[in-house]
Amino acid sequence: MDRKLIESLLNRRTVRKYTEEDIPQDVLNTVIEAGVRASNCGNMQIYSIIVTKDKQRKQELCKLHFNQPMVREAPVVLTVCADVNRFHKYCQNRNAPVSYNNFLWLNVGTVDATICTQAMCDAAESLGLGICYLGTVTYMAEPIAEFLKLPKGVVPITTITMGYPKEKPELTERLPLQAVVHYESYKDYSAEDINELYKDFEDLPQIRKYIEESRQENLAQVFTNVRYKKEDALVFGRNYLEFIKKQDMF
Amino acid sequence: MDRKLIESLLNRRTVRKYTEEDIPQDVLNTVIEAGVRASNCGNMQIYSIIVTKDKQRKQELCKLHFNQPMVREAPVVLTVCADVNRFHKYCQNRNAPVSYNNFLWLNVGTVDATICTQAMCDAAESLGLGICYLGTVTYMAEPIAEFLKLPKGVVPITTITMGYPKEKPELTERLPLQAVVHYESYKDYSAEDINELYKDFEDLPQIRKYIEESRQENLAQVFTNVRYKKEDALVFGRNYLEFIKKQDMF
Repeated sequence: MDRKLIESLLNRRTVRKYTEEDIPQDVLNTVIEAGVRASNCGNMQIYSIIVTKDKQRKQELCKLHFNQPMVREAPVVLTVCADVNRFHKYCQNRNAPVSYNNFLWLNVGTVDATICTQAMCDAAESLGLGICYLGTVTYMAEPIAEFLKLPKGVVPITTITMGYPKEKPELTERLPLQAVVHYESYKDYSAEDINELYKDFEDLPQIRKYIEESRQENLAQVFTNVRYKKEDALVFGRNYLEFIKKQDMF
Repeated sequence: MDRKLIESLLNRRTVRKYTEEDIPQDVLNTVIEAGVRASNCGNMQIYSIIVTKDKQRKQELCKLHFNQPMVREAPVVLTVCADVNRFHKYCQNRNAPVSYNNFLWLNVGTVDATICTQAMCDAAESLGLGICYLGTVTYMAEPIAEFLKLPKGVVPITTITMGYPKEKPELTERLPLQAVVHYESYKDYSAEDINELYKDFEDLPQIRKYIEESRQENLAQVFTNVRYKKEDALVFGRNYLEFIKKQDMF
């Protein structure tokens, strides 16, 4: 058994700074092929991948991602979409009813688009590339869809930037495995469990520094008072709901 | 660069039949660790993994997955959930506001749970295991959540069965890459495009046989008249929506 793939998976880092080197087309095709080879519902492939490489367009797309610099600096930006439009076109051309313009299939497409994305990420990293996911794709789904000219039935689900790494960040901390794994049934968390599971995390010097810089008492407050506020989530969630209705997927 | 890594990703097959061999705990832990190492929003890890190994419980869970035999025959079944409950418990214990019980964070959790799942699948396959995704987890989200004792804030997103392969299926067909990849902006499909892109697929002997057995004229009709009917999708979608409301995630 070849341990190298597993080592690549266990030692990966998110990479936000890339060299000027372009990704050769055959390498990009191999990465995409790995995404396409991954599991998908009924082998209907209800996803599409939009590649942004043009410099000017990356700068415009960057603005829609809250100006995160990776979008303009990476050689390749991929926006992976749930897409029932192509399959519907196929059905329309074969005298079959169009059945996928609803919430169930948005959900299936969301999962399938993400499976495809993550298989691409694992492939890319195994080939020496670095990637970064951008959650802003959901917050800004409607203007991003307009920018990419997505028709009804197509919803952007993930965005990743990809390029050859110009940095090798430290491996980031994770909760201990027992925090996220439950055997047979879900075991809810007592206050003591929470203290125990988050202890190492909260003790990290970089986390302490982050808390101090954010002028908060602890990491939980950094997240919910500063970084991911509820009022923002409600606005973004409402916008996303309106958008999926507009795309005829709710 | 080691090509073996990418070969595992490009040559994978979904495996539905498994040997009697159990997955050693250290191998399972390595697989889960690979899932946890993958990207996740803000490093908050808003997902949980429920492991079903008990024989009796696999049989009960199997019924909830429309009796698909993989669920009772695989040594390990993993149900990966979007989970804001743990993070909320952390916030409550740190005097921070609870902010994630809404549709935006269900969507983030759906993507993050799926990223984690697919990294586990890639890890498992690189270690000689086989996996199969079960879409039934969404159709049956509520009874599955009851069975796994999922509290509010926790929604099952993916289920995979995992074990050592007792079969090596043929590599399944995919659409040509140009069917799913768009450069710079989405290029919609003409009738000619559809014919061209689906041609090889429709000509496959196994697909022709499948169409004949289903007593339909073509593959599109097999999908939308027989396998994935609109009326079923509307019922399952409505049930899923009611369920995510009940879990306080909409």
